[in-house]
Amino acid sequence: MNLKNDLLLRTAKGEKVERPPVWLMRQAGRILPQYRALRGSLSGFKELVETPHLAAEVTIQPVDELNVDAAIIFSDILVIPEAMGLTYEMVEKKGPWFPKTIESISDVKKLGSGENVIGELQYVFDALAITKKELGGRVPLIGFAGAPWTIFSYMLEGSGSKTFSKARKFLYQDSIASHMLLEKITETTIAYLKQKIKSGADIVQVFDSWAGILPPHQYKEFAIPYLKKICDAIDEVPVIVFAKGAWFAAAELSELDCQVLGVDWNTKVSDLREKNNVQQVLQGNLDPCMLYASEETVRNSTLQMIADFGGKHICNLGHGVYPDTPLDNVKTFVNTVKNYKY
Amino acid sequence: MNLKNDLLLRTAKGEKVERPPVWLMRQAGRILPQYRALRGSLSGFKELVETPHLAAEVTIQPVDELNVDAAIIFSDILVIPEAMGLTYEMVEKKGPWFPKTIESISDVKKLGSGENVIGELQYVFDALAITKKELGGRVPLIGFAGAPWTIFSYMLEGSGSKTFSKARKFLYQDSIASHMLLEKITETTIAYLKQKIKSGADIVQVFDSWAGILPPHQYKEFAIPYLKKICDAIDEVPVIVFAKGAWFAAAELSELDCQVLGVDWNTKVSDLREKNNVQQVLQGNLDPCMLYASEETVRNSTLQMIADFGGKHICNLGHGVYPDTPLDNVKTFVNTVKNYKY
Repeated sequence: MNLKNDLLLRTAKGEKVERPPVWLMRQAGRILPQYRALRGSLSGFKELVETPHLAAEVTIQPVDELNVDAAIIFSDILVIPEAMGLTYEMVEKKGPWFPKTIESISDVKKLGSGENVIGELQYVFDALAITKKELGGRVPLIGFAGAPWTIFSYMLEGSGSKTFSKARKFLYQDSIASHMLLEKITETTIAYLKQKIKSGADIVQVFDSWAGILPPHQYKEFAIPYLKKICDAIDEVPVIVFAKGAWFAAAELSELDCQVLGVDWNTKVSDLREKNNVQQVLQGNLDPCMLYASEETVRNSTLQMIADFGGKHICNLGHGVYPDTPLDNVKTFVNTVKNYKY
Repeated sequence: MNLKNDLLLRTAKGEKVERPPVWLMRQAGRILPQYRALRGSLSGFKELVETPHLAAEVTIQPVDELNVDAAIIFSDILVIPEAMGLTYEMVEKKGPWFPKTIESISDVKKLGSGENVIGELQYVFDALAITKKELGGRVPLIGFAGAPWTIFSYMLEGSGSKTFSKARKFLYQDSIASHMLLEKITETTIAYLKQKIKSGADIVQVFDSWAGILPPHQYKEFAIPYLKKICDAIDEVPVIVFAKGAWFAAAELSELDCQVLGVDWNTKVSDLREKNNVQQVLQGNLDPCMLYASEETVRNSTLQMIADFGGKHICNLGHGVYPDTPLDNVKTFVNTVKNYKY
């Protein structure tokens, strides 16, 4: 099916475009009244993730309501550890929690990986197929996965953490088991993303949410090589890598075979383009808190951001949109981009 | 009283020294069995902070046990909001919690500030005087305070947070009240640090623990000017500014009239010295998790760090030492530095 709006894909491929495309990380979520209504009628977050027609419904909600240039499949990065044998729960107001965590190399050896385990995630592929059909080519569909280091950190830590010191300790204490686990996560992620693409994803994003917690030498050893494997393996569609907080690895990220790099709200585009000679298309990076400001400030900051990036740019926030963001300001952000002309 | 070991002060002043000095952020704390024994006999963390002879005792413990080149007064950055009228509690395993928070400009106006309120903190000054006397000039005594933005963030948020979105929202929604509050915190902090110096502090450190959560334009507007006021006001002793995660503001930090800049474990010294032409003495930045590695790795990484900095350097971790760090590895870290010769 041909896309009616392929601006995101043309931009990701580096083509000259009429304006930047725009979407928001976490656009399918609590900012939308439709989402809150549906979510309130369910037993929990995982029911929504695991029920394909519901996941498809919330994926499409922001396309209807916000008129963004892309849909991103509603899911969670932690379906990967679950498929590998480590189940998680989503605790209300607390976040993810793993009853069992990885503590040794024997735990790592017990985990499944690669194509063998992604059959567990048929519900994700079904959600993509339904979404694709229901979108009817209105906008591209983004598939996503967590980066190996970020998935690793949850599998070791068992939950979110301010320091992720358990996960980081393991890197120092058992680098063999660490690499073995990262390799297994990577194989699984590649198989998963490929199946997502077969199921309808037009582009994929890899989220390295906890990139910024590692020192540069560890990011180089334990994160970059696995991101590289993923980027090298995915040649069907463009790849976006968002390594939040990993400004120190700009040089290494710039060498990845991905078309787009995500930029968090702490990073100045000039530091990437000029100081580190980053050539990829960039995605980001309005401060999510900026959407709490006045409508006028939102509009002016959005225009300022577009000017700062100066092309080769996908408009987004520098992080997921916060749940209590005023919907009108989200719309101002989106519409400001949509009315822009290069 | 003359100091028997003034290596930290000579280094901070930019003098040529025989080896780098070494101390650890949070060295007075749970890594030491002596601390855990004393802490276990008390009702809570605040009793320790507010009882001068006990605060002095734990301040000196790491000098005895680890043989570090400095003592840092045992206290908490949140005594400042408390003196201004906003009390906090320290909840076991959760961290600080403020029963009341700042929600509007009228809340800000009600707060006390400056020299008028620091009488509330006599217990801190007493702790410094006792420590100074009991140290008998063995090593310099470090006084400290939170940076205005970090103190502000707790006063708005009421506790630690992953995003500090409440505090950041306030910056966007009421910049007048924000500046008023930051100004009040700054006045109080200056009066507080000056009294700490009169009570015996040989050098002071300002901790901007949540620097890294702000976008560059906000750090420039809401953090840098207040750090500048503090640095300009303190001319009695050297000043260390540790703006964790604020690599994006390296240029602005390099212009502060402080003698030392703290460096977190994510930051490469070459990015500061070469890309941003930072001239100050630097303090840091071993990854705290490195101290979970083998003794040999700790030793080699410490030597590598000293080589990377290449002088004008105070050895420390890139963050506070984690409570479960093996004491032997802390000693290996300290002794490796102490046995080094430039």
